[in-house]
Amino acid sequence: MIAVTSAVQAARLARLRASLAQASIDLLVVSHPPNVRYLTSFTGSAGLLLVDAVGAKLVVDFRYAIAARAAVAAAGGAPDGIEVVVAPSSLDDTAIERLKASRALRIGIESQWMSVSRFNRVSKGLAADAPTLLASPDPCPSLVTTERLIERSRAVKDDVEIATLREAGRRLARVAEQVPTLVLEGRTEREVAADVDALLRSAGFERPAFETIVASGPNGALPHARPGARPLRAGEGVVLDFGGVYDGYCVDLTRTVELGSPTAEWRRLAAAVAEAQAAAIAVVQPGVPASRIDAAAREVLVRHGLGEAFGHATGHGIGLEIHEEPRIAKRVEGQMDALLEPGMVFTIEPGAYVEGVGGARLEDDVLVTATGCEVLTRK
Amino acid sequence: MIAVTSAVQAARLARLRASLAQASIDLLVVSHPPNVRYLTSFTGSAGLLLVDAVGAKLVVDFRYAIAARAAVAAAGGAPDGIEVVVAPSSLDDTAIERLKASRALRIGIESQWMSVSRFNRVSKGLAADAPTLLASPDPCPSLVTTERLIERSRAVKDDVEIATLREAGRRLARVAEQVPTLVLEGRTEREVAADVDALLRSAGFERPAFETIVASGPNGALPHARPGARPLRAGEGVVLDFGGVYDGYCVDLTRTVELGSPTAEWRRLAAAVAEAQAAAIAVVQPGVPASRIDAAAREVLVRHGLGEAFGHATGHGIGLEIHEEPRIAKRVEGQMDALLEPGMVFTIEPGAYVEGVGGARLEDDVLVTATGCEVLTRK
Repeated sequence: MIAVTSAVQAARLARLRASLAQASIDLLVVSHPPNVRYLTSFTGSAGLLLVDAVGAKLVVDFRYAIAARAAVAAAGGAPDGIEVVVAPSSLDDTAIERLKASRALRIGIESQWMSVSRFNRVSKGLAADAPTLLASPDPCPSLVTTERLIERSRAVKDDVEIATLREAGRRLARVAEQVPTLVLEGRTEREVAADVDALLRSAGFERPAFETIVASGPNGALPHARPGARPLRAGEGVVLDFGGVYDGYCVDLTRTVELGSPTAEWRRLAAAVAEAQAAAIAVVQPGVPASRIDAAAREVLVRHGLGEAFGHATGHGIGLEIHEEPRIAKRVEGQMDALLEPGMVFTIEPGAYVEGVGGARLEDDVLVTATGCEVLTRK
Repeated sequence: MIAVTSAVQAARLARLRASLAQASIDLLVVSHPPNVRYLTSFTGSAGLLLVDAVGAKLVVDFRYAIAARAAVAAAGGAPDGIEVVVAPSSLDDTAIERLKASRALRIGIESQWMSVSRFNRVSKGLAADAPTLLASPDPCPSLVTTERLIERSRAVKDDVEIATLREAGRRLARVAEQVPTLVLEGRTEREVAADVDALLRSAGFERPAFETIVASGPNGALPHARPGARPLRAGEGVVLDFGGVYDGYCVDLTRTVELGSPTAEWRRLAAAVAEAQAAAIAVVQPGVPASRIDAAAREVLVRHGLGEAFGHATGHGIGLEIHEEPRIAKRVEGQMDALLEPGMVFTIEPGAYVEGVGGARLEDDVLVTATGCEVLTRK
């Protein structure tokens, strides 16, 4: 485990405070657990972090009191230390009290992650018992929507994160090497998936990063198939998509394995996918728009007559979440198209899916370096 | 696998339509995946279901097109069949188009599950290009918040669900019987957790219902501890909390195992917890408020001087989610306190946690019957 030091944490908080100042936000309510973890090292599933220009309060309930104090103390000692507040009953009620006490007027919320219910509850809570000093009536605090303040920062990994992802990638590559030995005629998709999960555990992963996909034969044509009771048969391609969480960080990989001799048609499809992936990896470097990576993969598949067969995006960022920024996808008017920066880590996973023929997908994780990229999931 | 027939699905949709009519809602946008699954059998992680008085449209993206059609067809054939709509790019954009085309005016959203971002996006989308016929200007559709419309219905299980949960409970009880054999001196919490997960798989569970908890010695005092590298030691109590997903349904169980001879103080604590659980199970019957179950457990622990040591709720509903309604907790002014009904299924899991002594928790799942309850996780 690579420890998050107080200096790393202070730097993350400082970046966030700079964005808050820019948006004239007095205080941000961080409610998305991976964002709370990024800033505090607290790994519980429920907690609200209130960050203002000078301090940060982590509001948790009874269940997480000890864990929250331990997490904060382990990374702590920074001048902008995080105070743990244990809510006697509802997190929201305690947060509302603290928000009022803070005297913040423009209170940011993470709109992508806060539910309409909670927004309405907090909003109502802030309005209740608003100060009513007649002589100088204080203005009432209001909630301001924010988008991706912390996510943008998380898209560019710091050194601790890169070290963790590099180690996780190495371990996942080792698992990938063993995977073809599991693909045997007669075994069910579900059995193979359970074995992949066991390999992930022995490789030191805390848990699979998502439900492992083993999609054989016709199921290969379903990009998000769930492993079922179907036995693998000779002459088929088998798509295995799996990932692991290592010290909180997710890595993600897909291999397509041939069992016996699949049809020539399927093999052409699989070869085109491999060519598409290589083309996409080749164009990764700082300053390139994310959509350019997607276009590189897509051009190859279109050239092979498989444009229609590739219906999903080429990749996604990975980190504390299995899907995060940047999105590596087609350029769409009005949608974000990140310019690649050193420190970004994402998957490159073109695929082709044809009903009646089957499917293939090939996925690796790359780190954008100063001059190009490093593939984290190949030895 | 116990199939959801078109009749079961039609009954679920009919119940929802009755609630919609009561709230004068023309159409409900169902966005919470377990709710979508409940109504359609579609198990994908992203999809929007638009339900109005006469039909239902399931909007999914490319990745899920085949799976959605298969799920709907398997349960389908009902007169109120569900139409699958594949979104060419953004789910929200396609949903907005369909919402406009539906001519619905009061459009319900699930406020607990829709983010502020999505709410604002859909709201804006509906306002754009509003009809502008001068002769008879159509009124503009608006979003209406709803709370727990489908959750309330899901709290009372139908026959298919009860059969599934009963089978899942039986299987989990068998796993629980084997668990004490894993608790051996010198093994780490994480190793034991991995073995519990392997037992869950061999018992036929699709996956663990949550990250298995193995908390030994002082870690037992953390209700939500994560299994770590700590080796088990003689003279300690070990809390094991685990669950499995069986055919989509979650069951949940906790056992506290003695390793060697724990202190007399810890044993008193563990005995008090067992007594509290028995007291709580004894009062379960239709018509009783959920808070009464919580009070029964709490009274026992208070009597043993452990009132402060029991900081969480006594239980929670289980089903397609690991935490759902009803909440079995203290009566709090203004918070829901469900009256128990036959068909409700929930956990009863009192615990006591004392820093320096350790912790104990005992958890089983019960089904409310016409006259009392059936414990699903004991043989």
